[in-house]
Amino acid sequence: MNLHPMKRVTIICESVLEDRVLELLHDTGARGHTAFPVRGGGHQGERCADTTETANVQIDVILQPAIAQTLLQRLQTELFADYAMVAYESDVRVLRPDKF
Amino acid sequence: MNLHPMKRVTIICESVLEDRVLELLHDTGARGHTAFPVRGGGHQGERCADTTETANVQIDVILQPAIAQTLLQRLQTELFADYAMVAYESDVRVLRPDKF
Amino acid sequence: MNLHPMKRVTIICESVLEDRVLELLHDTGARGHTAFPVRGGGHQGERCADTTETANVQIDVILQPAIAQTLLQRLQTELFADYAMVAYESDVRVLRPDKF
Repeated sequence: MNLHPMKRVTIICESVLEDRVLELLHDTGARGHTAFPVRGGGHQGERCADTTETANVQIDVILQPAIAQTLLQRLQTELFADYAMVAYESDVRVLRPDKF
Repeated sequence: MNLHPMKRVTIICESVLEDRVLELLHDTGARGHTAFPVRGGGHQGERCADTTETANVQIDVILQPAIAQTLLQRLQTELFADYAMVAYESDVRVLRPDKF
Repeated sequence: MNLHPMKRVTIICESVLEDRVLELLHDTGARGHTAFPVRGGGHQGERCADTTETANVQIDVILQPAIAQTLLQRLQTELFADYAMVAYESDVRVLRPDKF
Protein backbone atom coordinates (compact mmCIF):
# COMPACT_ATOMS: atom_id res chain seq x y z
CA MET A 1 0.00 0.00 0.00
CA ASN A 2 1.42 3.37 -1.04
CA LEU A 3 0.53 6.55 0.82
CA HIS A 4 1.13 9.85 -0.97
CA PRO A 5 2.04 13.07 0.86
CA MET A 6 -0.45 15.89 0.42
CA LYS A 7 -1.37 19.05 2.31
CA ARG A 8 -4.57 19.74 4.17
CA VAL A 9 -5.49 23.42 4.29
CA THR A 10 -7.99 24.38 7.01
CA ILE A 11 -9.82 27.68 6.77
CA ILE A 12 -12.05 29.07 9.53
CA CYS A 13 -14.13 32.09 8.61
CA GLU A 14 -17.51 33.72 8.97
CA SER A 15 -20.28 31.80 7.23
CA VAL A 16 -21.08 34.75 5.00
CA LEU A 17 -17.61 34.35 3.49
CA GLU A 18 -18.01 30.65 2.67
CA ASP A 19 -19.09 31.04 -0.96
CA ARG A 20 -16.23 33.41 -1.70
CA VAL A 21 -13.66 31.07 -0.10
CA LEU A 22 -15.04 28.09 -2.03
CA GLU A 23 -14.87 30.04 -5.26
CA LEU A 24 -11.23 30.95 -4.59
CA LEU A 25 -10.54 27.38 -3.55
CA HIS A 26 -11.90 25.75 -6.66
CA ASP A 27 -10.40 28.49 -8.82
CA THR A 28 -7.01 27.51 -7.36
CA GLY A 29 -7.48 23.91 -8.39
CA ALA A 30 -9.13 22.12 -5.46
CA ARG A 31 -11.30 19.22 -6.55
CA GLY A 32 -13.17 18.67 -3.31
CA HIS A 33 -13.66 20.03 0.19
CA THR A 34 -15.65 19.58 3.37
CA ALA A 35 -17.38 22.31 5.35
CA PHE A 36 -19.10 22.31 8.73
CA PRO A 37 -20.28 24.94 11.23
CA VAL A 38 -18.10 25.72 14.24
CA ARG A 39 -18.47 27.94 17.26
CA GLY A 40 -15.50 29.73 18.68
CA GLY A 41 -13.63 32.81 19.59
CA GLY A 42 -10.81 34.34 17.64
CA HIS A 43 -8.06 36.85 17.95
CA GLN A 44 -10.27 39.82 18.61
CA GLY A 45 -12.90 37.99 20.60
CA GLU A 46 -15.91 39.13 18.57
CA ARG A 47 -17.28 35.64 18.33
CA CYS A 48 -17.45 34.49 21.91
CA ALA A 49 -17.78 30.84 22.91
CA ASP A 50 -20.51 31.87 25.32
CA THR A 51 -22.94 32.74 22.57
CA THR A 52 -25.19 29.91 21.42
CA GLU A 53 -25.51 31.12 17.84
CA THR A 54 -22.81 30.05 15.43
CA ALA A 55 -21.85 31.97 12.35
CA ASN A 56 -18.47 30.46 11.58
CA VAL A 57 -17.57 27.65 9.24
CA GLN A 58 -14.54 25.38 8.96
CA ILE A 59 -13.51 24.40 5.45
CA ASP A 60 -10.97 21.61 4.92
CA VAL A 61 -9.37 20.80 1.60
CA ILE A 62 -6.74 18.25 0.55
CA LEU A 63 -4.32 19.57 -2.05
CA GLN A 64 -1.10 18.89 -3.88
CA PRO A 65 1.65 20.80 -1.98
CA ALA A 66 2.17 23.41 -4.72
CA ILE A 67 -1.54 24.14 -4.94
CA ALA A 68 -1.76 24.49 -1.16
CA GLN A 69 0.95 27.17 -1.35
CA THR A 70 -0.96 29.01 -4.05
CA LEU A 71 -4.20 28.84 -2.08
CA LEU A 72 -2.60 30.18 1.11
CA GLN A 73 -0.92 32.95 -0.87
CA ARG A 74 -4.19 33.97 -2.45
CA LEU A 75 -6.08 33.82 0.87
CA GLN A 76 -3.46 36.16 2.31
CA THR A 77 -3.51 38.55 -0.62
CA GLU A 78 -7.22 38.59 -1.37
CA LEU A 79 -9.05 38.03 1.92
CA PHE A 80 -6.91 38.28 5.07
CA ALA A 81 -6.75 42.07 5.19
CA ASP A 82 -10.51 42.48 5.13
CA TYR A 83 -11.87 39.56 7.14
CA ALA A 84 -11.45 37.85 10.52
CA MET A 85 -10.30 34.44 9.40
CA VAL A 86 -7.72 31.76 10.14
CA ALA A 87 -5.94 29.43 7.71
CA TYR A 88 -3.36 26.75 8.39
CA GLU A 89 -1.66 23.88 6.59
CA SER A 90 -0.82 20.38 7.80
CA ASP A 91 0.66 17.20 6.34
CA VAL A 92 -1.53 14.26 5.41
CA ARG A 93 -1.04 11.07 3.42
CA VAL A 94 -3.64 9.75 1.00
CA LEU A 95 -4.16 6.49 -0.83
CA ARG A 96 -5.41 7.91 -4.13
CA PRO A 97 -3.56 11.12 -5.08
CA ASP A 98 -5.41 11.32 -8.41
CA LYS A 99 -8.59 12.24 -6.57
CA PHE A 100 -7.19 15.58 -5.34
CA MET B 1 5.32 14.78 30.12
CA ASN B 2 5.68 12.12 27.42
CA LEU B 3 3.83 12.39 24.15
CA HIS B 4 3.43 9.21 22.10
CA PRO B 5 3.26 9.20 18.29
CA MET B 6 0.04 7.81 16.85
CA LYS B 7 -1.86 8.09 13.58
CA ARG B 8 -5.15 9.82 13.00
CA VAL B 9 -7.16 8.35 10.16
CA THR B 10 -9.89 10.59 8.74
CA ILE B 11 -12.64 9.09 6.62
CA ILE B 12 -15.25 11.15 4.76
CA CYS B 13 -18.13 9.20 3.26
CA GLU B 14 -21.86 9.19 2.67
CA SER B 15 -23.85 8.93 5.89
CA VAL B 16 -25.48 5.70 4.74
CA LEU B 17 -22.02 4.12 4.84
CA GLU B 18 -21.24 5.17 8.43
CA ASP B 19 -22.30 1.96 10.16
CA ARG B 20 -20.29 -0.16 7.76
CA VAL B 21 -17.18 2.00 8.21
CA LEU B 22 -17.53 1.89 12.00
CA GLU B 23 -17.90 -1.88 11.90
CA LEU B 24 -14.73 -2.20 9.81
CA LEU B 25 -13.01 0.29 12.06
CA HIS B 26 -13.72 -1.50 15.29
CA ASP B 27 -13.08 -4.88 13.67
CA THR B 28 -9.60 -3.56 12.81
CA GLY B 29 -8.91 -2.71 16.43
CA ALA B 30 -10.00 0.91 16.95
CA ARG B 31 -11.14 1.59 20.50
CA GLY B 32 -12.83 4.91 19.89
CA HIS B 33 -13.79 7.40 17.22
CA THR B 34 -15.62 10.65 16.60
CA ALA B 35 -18.16 11.34 13.86
CA PHE B 36 -19.88 14.52 12.69
CA PRO B 37 -21.86 15.63 9.63
CA VAL B 38 -20.08 17.60 6.91
CA ARG B 39 -21.16 19.26 3.72
CA GLY B 40 -18.92 19.27 0.73
CA GLY B 41 -18.11 18.40 -2.80
CA GLY B 42 -15.84 15.62 -3.93
CA HIS B 43 -13.98 14.33 -6.92
CA GLN B 44 -17.00 13.73 -9.09
CA GLY B 45 -18.99 16.67 -7.84
CA GLU B 46 -22.16 14.76 -6.99
CA ARG B 47 -22.38 16.40 -3.60
CA CYS B 48 -22.26 20.07 -4.37
CA ALA B 49 -21.49 22.73 -1.79
CA ASP B 50 -24.47 24.69 -3.05
CA THR B 51 -26.99 22.20 -1.73
CA THR B 52 -28.25 22.84 1.76
CA GLU B 53 -28.86 19.19 2.61
CA THR B 54 -25.91 17.24 3.96
CA ALA B 55 -25.53 13.53 3.67
CA ASN B 56 -21.83 13.12 4.38
CA VAL B 57 -20.06 12.26 7.61
CA GLN B 58 -16.46 12.69 8.78
CA ILE B 59 -15.11 9.95 11.00
CA ASP B 60 -11.83 10.45 12.87
CA VAL B 61 -9.98 7.72 14.70
CA ILE B 62 -6.67 7.65 16.60
CA LEU B 63 -4.71 4.44 16.08
CA GLN B 64 -1.39 2.74 16.62
CA PRO B 65 0.57 3.14 13.34
CA ALA B 66 0.34 -0.53 12.38
CA ILE B 67 -3.41 -0.58 12.92
CA ALA B 68 -3.81 2.60 10.85
CA GLN B 69 -2.04 0.82 7.97
CA THR B 70 -4.37 -2.14 8.28
CA LEU B 71 -7.44 0.08 8.39
CA LEU B 72 -6.41 2.03 5.26
CA GLN B 73 -5.60 -1.22 3.47
CA ARG B 74 -9.01 -2.65 4.31
CA LEU B 75 -10.83 0.57 3.34
CA GLN B 76 -9.09 0.39 -0.02
CA THR B 77 -9.80 -3.28 -0.58
CA GLU B 78 -13.33 -3.48 0.79
CA LEU B 79 -14.96 -0.09 0.15
CA PHE B 80 -13.08 2.27 -2.16
CA ALA B 81 -14.10 0.59 -5.41
CA ASP B 82 -17.80 0.82 -4.66
CA TYR B 83 -18.25 4.12 -2.82
CA ALA B 84 -17.39 7.80 -3.19
CA MET B 85 -15.22 8.28 -0.12
CA VAL B 86 -11.96 9.85 1.02
CA ALA B 87 -9.50 8.59 3.63
CA TYR B 88 -6.25 10.09 4.81
CA GLU B 89 -3.71 9.64 7.58
CA SER B 90 -1.86 12.23 9.66
CA ASP B 91 0.56 12.24 12.59
CA VAL B 92 -0.60 13.08 16.11
CA ARG B 93 0.89 12.77 19.58
CA VAL B 94 -1.13 11.60 22.56
CA LEU B 95 -0.57 11.59 26.30
CA ARG B 96 -2.14 8.21 27.08
CA PRO B 97 -1.36 5.64 24.36
CA ASP B 98 -3.09 2.87 26.33
CA LYS B 99 -6.44 4.48 25.55
CA PHE B 100 -6.17 3.82 21.80
CA MET C 1 5.24 33.54 1.76
CA ASN C 2 6.43 32.38 5.19
CA LEU C 3 4.65 29.64 7.06
CA HIS C 4 5.30 29.39 10.80
CA PRO C 5 5.24 26.08 12.72
CA MET C 6 2.62 25.89 15.46
CA LYS C 7 0.80 23.14 17.33
CA ARG C 8 -2.85 22.26 17.09
CA VAL C 9 -4.24 20.73 20.27
CA THR C 10 -7.49 18.79 19.84
CA ILE C 11 -9.61 18.00 22.89
CA ILE C 12 -12.68 15.75 22.80
CA CYS C 13 -14.78 15.74 25.95
CA GLU C 14 -18.32 15.71 27.29
CA SER C 15 -20.21 18.89 26.50
CA VAL C 16 -20.73 19.63 30.19
CA LEU C 17 -16.95 20.00 30.48
CA GLU C 18 -16.63 22.54 27.66
CA ASP C 19 -16.68 25.68 29.77
CA ARG C 20 -14.07 24.32 32.14
CA VAL C 21 -11.77 23.30 29.26
CA LEU C 22 -12.16 26.71 27.61
CA GLU C 23 -11.34 28.44 30.88
CA LEU C 24 -8.18 26.34 31.28
CA LEU C 25 -7.36 26.92 27.64
CA HIS C 26 -7.57 30.68 27.75
CA ASP C 27 -5.89 30.74 31.16
CA THR C 28 -2.95 28.93 29.52
CA GLY C 29 -2.64 31.62 26.87
CA ALA C 30 -4.80 30.51 23.94
CA ARG C 31 -6.19 33.45 21.98
CA GLY C 32 -8.79 31.59 19.96
CA HIS C 33 -10.43 28.21 19.47
CA THR C 34 -13.15 26.39 17.59
CA ALA C 35 -15.71 24.01 19.05
CA PHE C 36 -18.30 21.73 17.46
CA PRO C 37 -20.46 18.79 18.56
CA VAL C 38 -19.31 15.26 17.74
CA ARG C 39 -20.79 11.83 18.22
CA GLY C 40 -18.60 8.91 19.03
CA GLY C 41 -17.48 6.12 21.22
CA GLY C 42 -14.45 6.16 23.46
CA HIS C 43 -12.22 3.88 25.45
CA GLN C 44 -14.88 2.65 27.81
CA GLY C 45 -17.72 2.66 25.34
CA GLU C 46 -20.15 4.73 27.40
CA ARG C 47 -20.93 6.96 24.45
CA CYS C 48 -21.93 4.56 21.76
CA ALA C 49 -22.03 5.47 18.09
CA ASP C 50 -25.43 3.81 17.89
CA THR C 51 -27.11 6.47 20.01
CA THR C 52 -28.53 9.39 18.12
CA GLU C 53 -28.04 11.93 20.90
CA THR C 54 -24.68 13.65 21.08
CA ALA C 55 -23.16 15.02 24.22
CA ASN C 56 -19.53 15.36 23.19
CA VAL C 57 -17.66 18.34 21.85
CA GLN C 58 -14.40 18.70 19.93
CA ILE C 59 -12.32 21.77 20.75
CA ASP C 60 -9.38 22.72 18.51
CA VAL C 61 -6.83 25.36 19.37
CA ILE C 62 -3.70 26.61 17.59
CA LEU C 63 -0.85 27.41 19.95
CA GLN C 64 2.81 28.25 20.17
CA PRO C 65 4.65 24.95 20.87
CA ALA C 66 5.58 25.84 24.46
CA ILE C 67 2.00 26.82 25.29
CA ALA C 68 0.70 23.58 23.76
CA GLN C 69 2.98 21.66 26.13
CA THR C 70 1.68 23.62 29.11
CA LEU C 71 -1.93 23.07 28.06
CA LEU C 72 -1.48 19.31 27.66
CA GLN C 73 0.32 19.15 31.00
CA ARG C 74 -2.48 20.98 32.74
CA LEU C 75 -5.18 18.88 31.05
CA GLN C 76 -3.40 15.79 32.34
CA THR C 77 -2.94 17.11 35.85
CA GLU C 78 -6.27 18.85 36.35
CA LEU C 79 -8.85 16.95 34.29
CA PHE C 80 -7.72 13.57 32.93
CA ALA C 81 -8.10 11.65 36.17
CA ASP C 82 -11.72 12.67 36.65
CA TYR C 83 -13.19 12.79 33.15
CA ALA C 84 -13.51 10.64 30.02
CA MET C 85 -11.67 12.83 27.54
CA VAL C 86 -9.07 12.66 24.79
CA ALA C 87 -6.39 15.21 23.88
CA TYR C 88 -3.79 15.12 21.15
CA GLU C 89 -1.29 17.41 19.48
CA SER C 90 -0.39 17.79 15.81
CA ASP C 91 1.85 20.03 13.71
CA VAL C 92 0.42 22.86 11.64
CA ARG C 93 1.85 25.85 9.81
CA VAL C 94 0.23 29.26 9.88
CA LEU C 95 0.68 32.47 7.91
CA ARG C 96 0.20 34.94 10.77
CA PRO C 97 1.79 33.65 14.01
CA ASP C 98 0.95 36.89 15.84
CA LYS C 99 -2.71 35.90 15.81
CA PHE C 100 -2.16 32.90 18.11
